[in-house]
This record gives sequence, C-alpha cells and structure tokens, in this order.
Amino acid sequence: MSKIKMLCVYSALLGTALQVNAKEGMFTPEQLPSIAGDLKQTGLAIPADSINDLTSFPMGAIVSLGGCSASFVSEKGLAVTNHHCARGSVQYNSTPENNYLEDGFLAKQIGDELPAAPGTRMFVTVDFSDVTNKVLGDLDDDVQGRERYDLIEANRKALIAECESEPGFRCSVPSFFQGLEYKLIKQMEIRDVRIAYAPADSIGKYGGDIDNWMWPRHTGDFSFYRAYVGKDGKPADFSEDNVPYEPDHFLKVSAAGLSDGDFVMAAGYPGSTNRYARLSRVSYTFEWLYPTYLDLVGEWIDTIENASEEGSDARIKYESTLAGLNNFHKNTQGQLSGAKRVGLVPRRAEREEQLAAWLDKNDKSELKQALAELDEVSAQQMQMNKQNFWYNNLSRAQLLSSAQRLYRNAIERKKPDAERESGFQERDQIRIKEAIERIERRFDPVVDQAVWQKMISMYLEQPEENRVAAFDNAVGIDSATTKEQLESKLKAFYEDTLLTDTESRAKWLTASPEEFEKSSDPFIRLAVALFDTEMSIEDKSKALSGKAAALRPKYMKAIIEWQKSMGSLAYPDANSTLRVTYGNVTGGSPKDGLIYEPFTRLEGITEKDTGEAPFNSPEKQLSLINESQYGPYKLDDINSVPVNFLTDLDSTGGNSGSATLNAKAELIGLLFDGTFESVNSDWDFDPKTTRTIHVDSRYMLWVMEYVDGATNLIEEMTIVK
Amino acid sequence: MSKIKMLCVYSALLGTALQVNAKEGMFTPEQLPSIAGDLKQTGLAIPADSINDLTSFPMGAIVSLGGCSASFVSEKGLAVTNHHCARGSVQYNSTPENNYLEDGFLAKQIGDELPAAPGTRMFVTVDFSDVTNKVLGDLDDDVQGRERYDLIEANRKALIAECESEPGFRCSVPSFFQGLEYKLIKQMEIRDVRIAYAPADSIGKYGGDIDNWMWPRHTGDFSFYRAYVGKDGKPADFSEDNVPYEPDHFLKVSAAGLSDGDFVMAAGYPGSTNRYARLSRVSYTFEWLYPTYLDLVGEWIDTIENASEEGSDARIKYESTLAGLNNFHKNTQGQLSGAKRVGLVPRRAEREEQLAAWLDKNDKSELKQALAELDEVSAQQMQMNKQNFWYNNLSRAQLLSSAQRLYRNAIERKKPDAERESGFQERDQIRIKEAIERIERRFDPVVDQAVWQKMISMYLEQPEENRVAAFDNAVGIDSATTKEQLESKLKAFYEDTLLTDTESRAKWLTASPEEFEKSSDPFIRLAVALFDTEMSIEDKSKALSGKAAALRPKYMKAIIEWQKSMGSLAYPDANSTLRVTYGNVTGGSPKDGLIYEPFTRLEGITEKDTGEAPFNSPEKQLSLINESQYGPYKLDDINSVPVNFLTDLDSTGGNSGSATLNAKAELIGLLFDGTFESVNSDWDFDPKTTRTIHVDSRYMLWVMEYVDGATNLIEEMTIVK
Repeated sequence: MSKIKMLCVYSALLGTALQVNAKEGMFTPEQLPSIAGDLKQTGLAIPADSINDLTSFPMGAIVSLGGCSASFVSEKGLAVTNHHCARGSVQYNSTPENNYLEDGFLAKQIGDELPAAPGTRMFVTVDFSDVTNKVLGDLDDDVQGRERYDLIEANRKALIAECESEPGFRCSVPSFFQGLEYKLIKQMEIRDVRIAYAPADSIGKYGGDIDNWMWPRHTGDFSFYRAYVGKDGKPADFSEDNVPYEPDHFLKVSAAGLSDGDFVMAAGYPGSTNRYARLSRVSYTFEWLYPTYLDLVGEWIDTIENASEEGSDARIKYESTLAGLNNFHKNTQGQLSGAKRVGLVPRRAEREEQLAAWLDKNDKSELKQALAELDEVSAQQMQMNKQNFWYNNLSRAQLLSSAQRLYRNAIERKKPDAERESGFQERDQIRIKEAIERIERRFDPVVDQAVWQKMISMYLEQPEENRVAAFDNAVGIDSATTKEQLESKLKAFYEDTLLTDTESRAKWLTASPEEFEKSSDPFIRLAVALFDTEMSIEDKSKALSGKAAALRPKYMKAIIEWQKSMGSLAYPDANSTLRVTYGNVTGGSPKDGLIYEPFTRLEGITEKDTGEAPFNSPEKQLSLINESQYGPYKLDDINSVPVNFLTDLDSTGGNSGSATLNAKAELIGLLFDGTFESVNSDWDFDPKTTRTIHVDSRYMLWVMEYVDGATNLIEEMTIVK
Repeated sequence: MSKIKMLCVYSALLGTALQVNAKEGMFTPEQLPSIAGDLKQTGLAIPADSINDLTSFPMGAIVSLGGCSASFVSEKGLAVTNHHCARGSVQYNSTPENNYLEDGFLAKQIGDELPAAPGTRMFVTVDFSDVTNKVLGDLDDDVQGRERYDLIEANRKALIAECESEPGFRCSVPSFFQGLEYKLIKQMEIRDVRIAYAPADSIGKYGGDIDNWMWPRHTGDFSFYRAYVGKDGKPADFSEDNVPYEPDHFLKVSAAGLSDGDFVMAAGYPGSTNRYARLSRVSYTFEWLYPTYLDLVGEWIDTIENASEEGSDARIKYESTLAGLNNFHKNTQGQLSGAKRVGLVPRRAEREEQLAAWLDKNDKSELKQALAELDEVSAQQMQMNKQNFWYNNLSRAQLLSSAQRLYRNAIERKKPDAERESGFQERDQIRIKEAIERIERRFDPVVDQAVWQKMISMYLEQPEENRVAAFDNAVGIDSATTKEQLESKLKAFYEDTLLTDTESRAKWLTASPEEFEKSSDPFIRLAVALFDTEMSIEDKSKALSGKAAALRPKYMKAIIEWQKSMGSLAYPDANSTLRVTYGNVTGGSPKDGLIYEPFTRLEGITEKDTGEAPFNSPEKQLSLINESQYGPYKLDDINSVPVNFLTDLDSTGGNSGSATLNAKAELIGLLFDGTFESVNSDWDFDPKTTRTIHVDSRYMLWVMEYVDGATNLIEEMTIVK
C-alpha cells in the first residue's frame, strides 16, 4: 500500500538506480487511513485516522482562499497564509501616505484590521459527501457525446443548487479520478475578510521575481487574515458590526522547530496536475503546445513592452500582467527542460506499455478497448485545439473577450437558471461584474490594440483551415492584409468603442441580447458576429468531452487496479480540493556537483542584501542579524534562525499558503513554492529533484517578535515548544 | 611562518569566526623552503626544497605561453595546457572542410602536428637571478620623479639587452614587492610551436560562456602543444627540418587520481593581483573606477551590437571583442558584489589602521612618513586617471590607436635602441607588426566609427577640465556639438583614411616621423596633433611613478616586517612570473543554503546536454557515459569518472593551463578557472568562498583513450598509478 513501492516501480522502469526518498502523492484525507503504515513509518506521531475528516481537527482548520490555501491559528478567526496570497489586499489598502507594501501593516488589536481586496473570500469546508451515484447513476454507457456531457452538467448543477439553497454557502461537485468519482463539497463562504498583519515587501517578498522558484531562498512569505461574520455567526458582507469568526478548529504553532529529516505534512488545495495524462497528450503538450505557447508568450511580452514606455502609466497597469507572463514563460521553459531531463515522453511511453501488458495478461479487454477509444477521442480533441489555437488567442485582447463574455451573459440570462451554462448562473453574476469592472486596473487601449494586432498577425500566418471565416469577414481581413491595413482597421475599433470606459462596460451587464444585436459598438458587433462560430466550436468540444466522460473513468479504473496489483495506492490528480502530502525535511542535489542544504539562515539574508529591491531587508532586521539576536528561535544544527526549508513533499500551484505540519499536526511553517527543478512535477513526479520550499515558523515568529512587534498576535496564538 | 596564521589574523580583524581552510598565497618557488613546515603539514610528500629551483624538476617542466601556463609531459616536447589557451591555434588551422574546432584535431604521430597560430611562443625558464642591486644600486633616495623613473628603466633595459645578446632568449626584469626586489629572468623562446591534440569544442569548451566561472562545471579544458627547435637544439622559426624539443624535465601524469581533501599544488604564471593596494586605491577602484567602467563597457557592447546585425560579417569580426567585453562586464560585476560581500573597503581600512598602530608602537616613523607620502602621490595619480579617463577611452577606436602607435614607433625608431621607450625597441618590432596586421580580423569601419562616436559623446559630456583641447580642436568639436554634427565629422575621418587597409597600415611601420607629419590621412594627422599632449600626460605620469618608486618598496618593507612580527610570510603580488600555490581538494559553500561538491561526474555532462552548443557533447561520449564505460579512471567516492574538481588554491588570470600537481608532484589535472565568487580574490582573498576549478587528469585520459583514440600520446607520456 505504500507509495514508496510505486516509486520503486517507476525507477525500475527507468532502469536507473534512483535513491528514492521523496514522497509522491497528493492524497485526499479520506485516503489516509489506507496508508497509515507508511505515514507512521515516515514519522507521523498521531493516528492516521485522526486526520482524515475534513471537518475535524486538524483538517477543519485548513481553509481555501480560492487559488491559495490558509489555516486558522486562533479561536478568533485569525488565519495564516502566504504573503503573496494576501499581497493584493495590502496593495488595495496602500496609498502614497500609507504605503503598507513598503512598510508592512499590523493591526495592534482586534477591530483595527483593514478590509481585504474586493472579492476576497475564505472557504471553510463544512460537509463532504460522495455523490457519484447522483451524478452518474442514471447514465447508461450508451448515453454519449453532447447528451452525456449535458446530463452530467445538469446533475451537478442540481446538486449545487440544492446545497446552496442555504445562504452563505458555496458548493461544488468536483470529479476525482477523471470522472470515476464525484464529491459534493459544501463550504461556508466568509465574505468579510480583513488583513490583520503583513510584513513589508522587503521581508514578505524578499528576493522577488529573481528568487522565484529558486533555492537558496530567504522569503518571509507569510501574512495573517482575520475572518469576520455577522453577529449571528453567519457569513455577511463587511460591516462594522461584524464579529470575528470562531472556527471549530485551529492549529497550534510550533516554536520548537524542525531538524533535517523530520516528518512533515502539508494540507492545502492544490490546483491541478496531469500525472495520468496519456502519452499522446504528453507528446502533444511538450512537443507542440508548450513550445508554441513559449513563442506566443515571448511575442506577447515584447509587444506589451514595446507599446508601453518603462515607467509610464500604461506600463504600470501592465506590470502584473507582465509578471504573470514572465512567470509563465520561465515555468514553461523549466517544464520543457525538466521533461527532457527526466525523459518524460519515453518514460510515459514505457508506463503505457506496461499498463497495456498488464491489461493483456489479466484479460481486461473491455478496459483495453476503452483506452483505445479514449485515445481516439483525445486525438480529435488535440486536433481541434491545434486548429483553433491561434483563433482562440485572438481574445487575448481584453475588449474582445469582455464583449464576448457580456453577450454570452445576456444570452444565458434569458434561460431559467438551472439551464444556464455554468459560470453564467445567478450565483456567478457578482463575479462577472467584478471581473468586468476590474479590467480598468490592468488595461490601456494602446497596449490592448498592440496585443490584438500581434495576435491577429500570427493568426493570419496560419493556413486557411486554422482560420475562422466569421472573424476574417467581420474584421475585413485575409492573408493578404498588410500590417498597415490591419493597423488602420484595428485603430477604428478602438476609436469607436465605448468599452474602454468602466461604466459603459458595466451597463452591458444587464442589457438584453437584442440591445447587443442593435449596437454599433465595434467590439459588441464583433462579439455578436462570432457567436454562432463560438457555439459551434463549443458544441463540438462538449460532444468530445461527453464521449471522453464515458471513457476516462475506465482508464482510471485500469490505473487503480494495476497499481493495486503492485501494492500501490493511486491518488487522484489535484483538483483544487483539500489534499494532504507528507514526507521529510531534506536538502537535495538538483544537479551533478551541487547540493541544496535543507535550511537557510538569517545570515543568508544579509549575504544577499544589496539595499535595493528585491534585496532590501529592513535596516532593523539587518542589525538584529548582525547582533545574532536569535532569541528562542535558533536551530542549533545551523547555528542560526532557520528562514526557509526544503522538503520532498508533492505540491503544485494552489498549495501556496498550505499549513506545513509536524508529526503532531502543529503548524511548523507555510508551503510557498517549489524549486525550478520541480516545475515539471505536475506531469511526472521526479523523486530525485522535486523539492518544495517552506517558510519556517521560527522565522515567522522571530520577525513578528523582533522586527515588527506583532506580539498581540503571538499572544493570541497557541505557541508550543 | 605558516600562511594559516596570517589568515587567522585577518579573520580576527573581521570579528567573525571563519572556518579557515583555504590557502592564500602565490609563492615564488624560492620562498617554498621557508614554509616547508606548512607544506608538509598540508600534505606535500616530497621535500619542499626540491621544488624551489626554477630550472630543476618539477619547476623546470613548467613553461609560459605568455598569458597562459603549460607544462612538459614527455621528453619529446609535448606540453599540456588549457583548450582555451590553444584554441586560437585550432581556429587558425580550421577551414570549412577541416573544421578542427568542431571535430577536434589529433596528430597520430610526431611530425603530423599543425603549426600554432602566428605569434605563439613557448617560454622555458633557463636562468633566474636577483638583480635588485643592479637596478637600484646607484639610486639615492633623493633621485626622484621622472629622473628616478628613467634611471630604473635604463638599468632594466641594459640588463635585458645584455641577457638577450644570446639569440633565442627573451629576458625580463620584473619587480617583486612593488619594487623592493628585481629579478632577471632568462627564458628560451621557442618559436616553432605546433598543435598536437585538441578535443572538439564540444568537449574542450563544453558549457562555453554560460558556464564560464560557474560551478558545477564539466569542461574538458585541455589541449596539447609540441615544441620544436632547430637540429642544433636552439629556437628556430617553423621549418620541416625542425625536431621536437627535448626538455630537461617533464611531469609524470597520474591516473590514480585525487580524493576529497587531498593535497594539491599548482605551478604557473599568474598575471597580477592587488593584495597590498592601499585603502585609497581600493576605494577609488571599487567606488569610482569599476562602476564607471561597467557603464562604459555596457554602452560599448550596446554600440557594437547596434552597429552590426546578428550573423553579419561585421558581427562575426566582433564576436571575440564582444565575448571579451561581456566577460569583463560579468567579472567586474562579480568583483563589485564580492567586494560588498567581504566588506573589502572596511576590511582594508581596518588592516591599514592595524599596520599604522604597529608602526607607531615600534617607532617606525620613517616608514610611516613614507606611507603618508605614498598616499599623497597615489592621490595625485588617481586624480590624473580620473581626469584623463574619458580622453583615454577615445582610443577604443582602433584606427586612432593604430595611428598613434605607428607615429610613436616612428619617433622612437629615430633614437638609439637603448633609449627607446620600452615596447618600441628593436626586440618589439615584430610584435608591433603582428598587432598592426592582426587588426583586420577584428575590425569593421562602420562599427569602429560607431564605437568612436559613442566614446566621443561620453567624453563631450565631461566638464572642460576633463577634456583635451588638442583633441577638440583637431576634430573640431565642443560640448555644443550635436550628434548629427559629430556623426558627419567622424564619417569624413573614415571616408578619407587609408588605414582601414592592412597593407596601407603596414606601410607606416617603416615611415619616418616627417612622412607622418606631411600626411593628409585624417587619423595620422590626428595622431600627430595629439602627440605633444600625449607626451605631456606621459611625462606627468612617469614623474609620479618615479616618486612612487622611491616609496612603494618602503611600504612593502613595512608589510613584510609587520607580517613577520605575527609569524607570517608575505608573498609578492602576482607579476606573470612562476608561482606555486598549494592547498587541498575541497568543495565549499558559495552562499547560505548551497554547497558545492568537490567533484563533478561524467553523468553531469549528460544531465546538462541539450544537443546544442555549448551543451552538445559528442554522441560517442554520451553513449560511453550511458554505458558507464569508466575504464580504469573511475573514482569510487563518486561512482564515476571525475570531470572537474575544486580546490582552495589561490589563483588568478594567467594561471590558466597551470599544472595541478599531487603530493608527489605528478600531474593530476590542469587549473582553468575560478568560481564566480572568487573573482574578487585579486584584491582580497576570501578563504570562505575562493575556489579554483581544475580539469581532472582522469577525465583527460578517459577522453583521450575512449572518445578521441589519442593512444599515441598516452603511450608517449609516463602514466603513473
């Protein structure tokens, strides 16, 4: 049953003698009792079945911020997460006079907190149940294609609607093992979230983009939110009258610290992985999709930079977009080189052959047949993605995508709520509104036009069959259109539209389809003109998804049985639901000749410091380090206070802010990043190089006590030695 | 007497608890008996006084290539050096049909070698004597300034002339300890040097500029020359009739290999260091000169790149200039950050205070007075350098510098040989000719003009007192000159000159000063117009040097006595003479959280390989690695063949190609680089981070035996286990 076994199988397949230490697996809490033996052997000091209930201690203390994870650390709704998860809220409250990004922010007492950025939510899981039968129960195998897709969606929506009939809750029906199982998850949606404490960027973002994914690391990537609810204890919009939320469970914070080799586990909401992707999809992704994206994103970055002078208002609006694109670019490069390093494609080919051999040997001809059919559907999906790739990227221009979203919304709003496309139901309207309004913060018409022009010119270079007649006709272009002609056509779009104005955009949120169809706004007209094409693409796509939906569960069934036959427990791909990963504190060797130490030290901050961002530690902190003012937070092994540490835990995006727990389930740090060598692990967990980066609770407490004087929070939490 | 003591003093001054392992010191061989105790304790297995004679074994086997080091490894004149030291010769012989850079080159038998690039020399030291009295003996303290400078130069030139009266020898009179001592070094100058074996770039330059100064490293940086002489055994120009030179001494090559912690020493010709620079010069360099150069070189690189399209002929001609400038840029950045890291300026200030206190305490008022005077002279020198900095950089335009050099040569050639400026004597004429002709390989008029324009525009931004009237008048510019005006003026220079043509340039090598003065070539006219200014600057500079020449020896005397009082042996700054440095094989921690392993492995080559230069190892090599075909060259500790290794040896530029010797003085590898963290060690040896990089003899032999089949050379050498 141990994962170690599964890894040994992999390394045997590889034909190399890997020293397997790392712990692959993002387990659902309910799986934990099944691997209790390995958990105990790895070092867990409490019973495995005490951590399998999502609504008990400690899992009940683990919450989602939607995209990030957090955990309660006091009975007064205090929750700790990464600085980079809460930074938007700090930024939202910052002004030139009160620059909290630069100076940090601390509410010295309850009630002094600042409201988090609009849209910030905290989700507390209150119920979790298997609904596979309710989603799939009435579906025969011969219900296929679009019909199957629609029925599954209808069943999920009905379950969600029923669950959300109680106000203040958000429900979801994620699939596990690619549709083999469905769970209904009910979460309390706390809407009044406030920022309680964030260190300055020069601590919380120390190293910035330069150190992103890098080790050695010295980032104080932690911040504190406080959840507020109405006096009745129920979720409420922000109000002075609200009171701190009192969670059923919260974590104790350890000041005793870890040593090299110690057991650790992390609990959080990892976003998505592709550990079971078939070979054809792996090849498609690494041989076509990623390289193509790399080129496209490179052009995109250049276009934004050329269209906005450094330091200009336009550039400032696009800083965060550029940071995201650069991040994606670096990550994709890392994934491509990682895939090459571990031999992802040949390795997956070998795994597929092994699985096929096992199916043959065990007379699983039905499953084998399903696999062949799945690969065929998958080939059609990839073919379709390739064909529409350049067309789909045309909506990188924000005004076009906004117009399309608004028109779709008007169409859907005419339908009964249950029949609307997911994402356009009543429950989604507030988010659509927020998104449509938020554009103004990250938009400049000159830059948007330049991006659109670049995307269109790349699109026009494609052969006829990869183009869309409705688009070409509506814009009035073909492959003979010159750059100058294109530019003058696009200029007219931006001169004549009112969508650049936030209020004008918002007006369309409640407009009828007819109003759209009568509009003379060029982007609205284009959205209307493209609608039938969009629906036809969507229809084909859903039909293929429906076909796949009947086949994927069989593939996963085969995987699960095959792994079970080798004594291993398969875990579902990450899907933004609560998962537990466990392993040990450990350094590593990212490459021949180089060794990562498991801990970094306070002195490493001074070593990196240049006085300029992102290496501009506060003077006070540098003085404290210079005086070796460690207080009770020193780790003797390294003769200093540990700042960040490495583990072999299995993590991915969405895990940011995850509570890192010791053998007694006390908070010992926060997960905040993976090393550059690990970015490929979404596709193939390489135990030799995959390492996850955490901020140590001793550094958090040291900063709070000595640098920022956040003693009120230290007193509020339960600190254990 | 041990160096370790000196280092402990430093660390005590620093107030930190460094773990001192590294071995500071580039000792002259004659100093070695004085530190025999520490040599033995560190691991030397042969008597220290057996390695102090430059003309006996093993030092007699160590030769200079002028800028690089090499060593004889057979009785038939076979000499091993770095690939990067011999690569120019491989390039010189390469054609599209026989691309030796790409394929490597191996002479399968003696006589099949290819001639090295023109100007390649091998210098074998045959005599070494102290001539301090002959240089300084007749100089009273009151001979000062220009007079002192000229008398010292005259004495050195007379010694050189006398020594070189025997044909085939090159002599020099370098100063040691800043003029406290002078040595006469007589070297046989072998002019027929041939390339015997060089692996392909994909081994010898593996990692290229990307890995330059980096660890982990996997570069096969080794090549073999063979020295030829006339049948009479004397140096001769290249001839079919020449025979291999039979050196008196050569090194055995060890295939037994090293382990972590083993004793090693390196013998070679390090270029220059500034370990005893006074605080004021350190501040000047790190606070003004280097930052200013960094800006200038950045602009210079941009200018070349903008003026030459990628892939164009012009760009190809400047590739090597660009590589050099980028190298300088990276190195200077490393030096600046290194200086910051070790606290170079405060550390030097503290050392200066300690020295001053010791002088006070020991009533060395005369020395103290000399130091004060030296600092005053030095201040004037730095002031002068600052003032002329931008003017001096105007001659970055190659046509101006050529014209100036040619005119100066014509002036000097009118004088009796002994009275000519050093560098323009008869013995220098062949080098001047080679340099003037060589320009064509690295020159394009459009790029040269662009560089000149950039340098002039930076110069014009300086205040009046930093400009030179003769230049402004001759070119017809002032601070009001617009970019366009300047461009049209410079265009005329390049349109009207004949110096762009190699033959036309060469014609001026024998022209008289009068012919220059009558010329209408704009660059020749400019050189003539600037001559008086140049001479006036040179006169001031020599007068200051002469003043300093009377004071610097006193400063070094103070240093030597002070260090002796603490039981330490001072060593002279590097000056391109033979030095020995010793220490141990050791990894290190370049920064908090990161550890360098002492050895890299064959498998690390595969790990880095992308199939594209500079990570394009030959297929054959990759297959051998894949099959773990280690032969007898495996190091059990690392379960592979070691490729490169790290030591704590003290080295600098010019050490490239230095023989790395084990405790029995057998060749165990070649020194070829330092880590990025070490580039600052020229100013301040930081024992914590300074690491030198070597190619392991086991990797050399493995490549020779298995990849390139250079078995003839393996048989020729004496391989020991």
